[in-house]
Amino acid sequence: MSKRANFAHPILDVIADRWSPYGYDPRPVPTTDLKSLFEAARWSASAFNEQPWRYLVATCDDEKNFSALLSCLVDANQGWAQHASALVMTVASLNYDLNGEPNGTALHDIGLAAATLTTEATSRGLMVHQMAGILPDQARELFGIPVGFEAVTALAIGFAADPTTLPDELRETDTAPRQRRPLAETVFTGAWGQAADLVR
Amino acid sequence: MSKRANFAHPILDVIADRWSPYGYDPRPVPTTDLKSLFEAARWSASAFNEQPWRYLVATCDDEKNFSALLSCLVDANQGWAQHASALVMTVASLNYDLNGEPNGTALHDIGLAAATLTTEATSRGLMVHQMAGILPDQARELFGIPVGFEAVTALAIGFAADPTTLPDELRETDTAPRQRRPLAETVFTGAWGQAADLVR
Repeated sequence: MSKRANFAHPILDVIADRWSPYGYDPRPVPTTDLKSLFEAARWSASAFNEQPWRYLVATCDDEKNFSALLSCLVDANQGWAQHASALVMTVASLNYDLNGEPNGTALHDIGLAAATLTTEATSRGLMVHQMAGILPDQARELFGIPVGFEAVTALAIGFAADPTTLPDELRETDTAPRQRRPLAETVFTGAWGQAADLVR
Repeated sequence: MSKRANFAHPILDVIADRWSPYGYDPRPVPTTDLKSLFEAARWSASAFNEQPWRYLVATCDDEKNFSALLSCLVDANQGWAQHASALVMTVASLNYDLNGEPNGTALHDIGLAAATLTTEATSRGLMVHQMAGILPDQARELFGIPVGFEAVTALAIGFAADPTTLPDELRETDTAPRQRRPLAETVFTGAWGQAADLVR
């Protein structure tokens, strides 16, 4: 079973081999790996180097905090994400430290950091499933997220399960081929919708 | 001269060696590299696999389209970005194809794809300087970006210049050490502001 991207142009293994599993192996994530995941995020780019990212993290051996983070996911995500080895809530600083004005790229920059963290994870054999389906108000209440910050996504982190061990529904999802729109419908030159020569 | 991240925990070279130059070498970006940069972005994660990213691209040899993209940057960015070998405008699809509802993570997912593209670039010796300072209305008018889509950032892509060849101001910026907040102020467990054990 490989979920490797069926790429049209060569890309790095750490990019081709990234995918978002629903099934997780019970193995814990080594602490040294988790440190490097956050360190990778730390060195991401951000507008004015504001680094608008903050994280709430719990590993599965820390039952109290893991349960609290799990309770901040929508029900559909709690079902599978409870088997992850670590959960992370990403939180954005909504205003510039620089001048207090709204940071229009805060969410964008949370994405930059999340992808960087995920690339580091893939290089260590770890998988990251990002979720938009979270309960930001629940997270604010449980963890005391202050005004000016807001939970954006959650990350389930762990080793992907052997799909033969999964219930039917998860096995089907975790073994289905990955699909993407062709680049000719994505990369334009000169005018909207006009495929760039380089992707024709 | 190295702008390599002064990391506290080991991270991939393609992450440690990424930075955002202001000075570019006149060498063009090979077309094969550009293809792989967009291919990398293509395989990013996104909410509901919506792939909300679109791109307008021009290489410096395509004077008409390069000038048009350059004119969509704020003046301060036009000054240095005119020397990049390629310019890209990232554009977000603001609503789900799925149901027409607003996609709350569109900007976030543009960030995921931008970081993935940038990682692929770093692996090829190319640098990407992302800019929030753009003129989205100018881009809409010049390139016919339709309702439901919006320009988010621009990317200057090329080979970093030898800083000794740069004017004083750019040389200082491009040789200054990179700075980041410590992880203990970023990664929390249990409550906001409480540093996670793993980053203490």
